Amino acid sequence: MGANDWMSGAEKAVPGVKPTLMLGYMIVHDSLTTQERYMVFYTTPLSFALVNLKPLLPGHVLVSPHRSVPRLTDLTPPELSDLFLTVQRVQRMIALTHFPSPGDPTDGGFNIAIQDGEEAGQSVPHVHCHVIPRLRKDGKGDGIYDEMAGEGGNVGGHLWDREMAKRPVPGGKFPRIEDADREARSKEEMRVEAAEFKERMRELDESETDV
Amino acid sequence: MGANDWMSGAEKAVPGVKPTLMLGYMIVHDSLTTQERYMVFYTTPLSFALVNLKPLLPGHVLVSPHRSVPRLTDLTPPELSDLFLTVQRVQRMIALTHFPSPGDPTDGGFNIAIQDGEEAGQSVPHVHCHVIPRLRKDGKGDGIYDEMAGEGGNVGGHLWDREMAKRPVPGGKFPRIEDADREARSKEEMRVEAAEFKERMRELDESETDV
Repeated sequence: MGANDWMSGAEKAVPGVKPTLMLGYMIVHDSLTTQERYMVFYTTPLSFALVNLKPLLPGHVLVSPHRSVPRLTDLTPPELSDLFLTVQRVQRMIALTHFPSPGDPTDGGFNIAIQDGEEAGQSVPHVHCHVIPRLRKDGKGDGIYDEMAGEGGNVGGHLWDREMAKRPVPGGKFPRIEDADREARSKEEMRVEAAEFKERMRELDESETDV
Repeated sequence: MGANDWMSGAEKAVPGVKPTLMLGYMIVHDSLTTQERYMVFYTTPLSFALVNLKPLLPGHVLVSPHRSVPRLTDLTPPELSDLFLTVQRVQRMIALTHFPSPGDPTDGGFNIAIQDGEEAGQSVPHVHCHVIPRLRKDGKGDGIYDEMAGEGGNVGGHLWDREMAKRPVPGGKFPRIEDADREARSKEEMRVEAAEFKERMRELDESETDV
C-alpha cells in the first residue's frame, strides 16, 4: 500500500453523498471508504465540528471551515460568519452537556482560540477554532494556555500519529512539550462522544426551529 | 466628585456625533468630554478596535462589539460577522505595520483568542477578541498563553488601574501573576500607536474600495 492510499477516498466524491471532510491532510469523515465517522459531530454547508483525540478538558472540540485554507484571513465573509455562528451553536451544545445548569452557556466559561499560522502554534494548515469549556472546578487555571501551546494542542500531530504513525514537527517556535499525562482516546470513545454531541446538536437545532 | 461622575459622558449621546465607546465599564472613546481618544483606532457600525495599555507583544490589539455584552453567545449574527470581519481587517493592518513583508498577513502568525466568561480568564464583562501578532523572532514561545492568562492579559485590570486607581480582582480561578517586567504605556504612546493604526486602516479601506 502506497503512502497516500489512505487518502484516496477524498477523490471519490459522489453527488448526493455527504462530502469527505478533511482537517488539513487528514480525512476526518469519509462516508465512502472504511474511514469511519468517529470525530465529526456537526456539519453546516460551510463548517464542521469535531471531537478531539486528546482534549485538554472534557468537551474541548474544534470547529473548522470545509475549505482547507490555512489562515483566518483566507476565509470569505460567508465562511467566516458560518464558522463563528457554528462556534456559538457548539458552545450552546457544550453548555447542555457539560455545564452545571444545562443549556445556560454563561454557567461556565469558554476559551475560544485560533492558532493562526505556524508562528502562533498552528499544527495543521487548516483553520480550526478551539472551543474549550471552563468550569470553576476544572482546576486548570492558567495551565490551559500552556497545554494548548504544547503537545496538548497539537491537533495535527495527534491526527498524524493515528493515521500515519509519525508526525510533522510542531510548527512555530514552541518547544515540544511531551504529553506524558494524557493518553490518546480510543476511536470508540470518540465515536460515543461524537454521537452524543451530534444528538444534542440535532435537539438544539430542532428546539430553535420550533420557536 | 461622585464615584461614577467619570462615566457621565456615556449618557450625553448627541445625534450625528460619534458615540461614546465603552469596554465594559470603561470609556475608551468619548468625543464629548475630556476623555481622550487615545486607544480606539477603528470603528465599524457594530465593532471597534483599540490598542492595549500593556500589549503582550508589539501590535497586540483588541476588537470588541459596540454593544457591551459579556459573552460570545450574546452576539447577534450581524454583530458576530462584523466582529470577525473586523478581526480580519485588523490582521491585514497589523501585517502592514509589523510583518517582514508588509501587507502579507501570512508572513507571520496571530494568536486570536477570546476569554469568554470569568472562568476562562475574562477580566472585563464585554466581549473582546485578542489579536496578537507572532513573529519567528519574538521569542515568546508558549509563554504567550501564560501571559495572556495572567496579569498581562488582564485588560479590565489595566483600564481600571488607569481610570479608577484600583481594580477588580481578576476573574476565574487564575492565580494573579504580577506584572513586574512590563510597564504600562503612557497615553501619549498609545495615542501615537492608535493614530498610526488608524491611518493604516484608512489606507487599507481605501485600497480595497479602489479595486
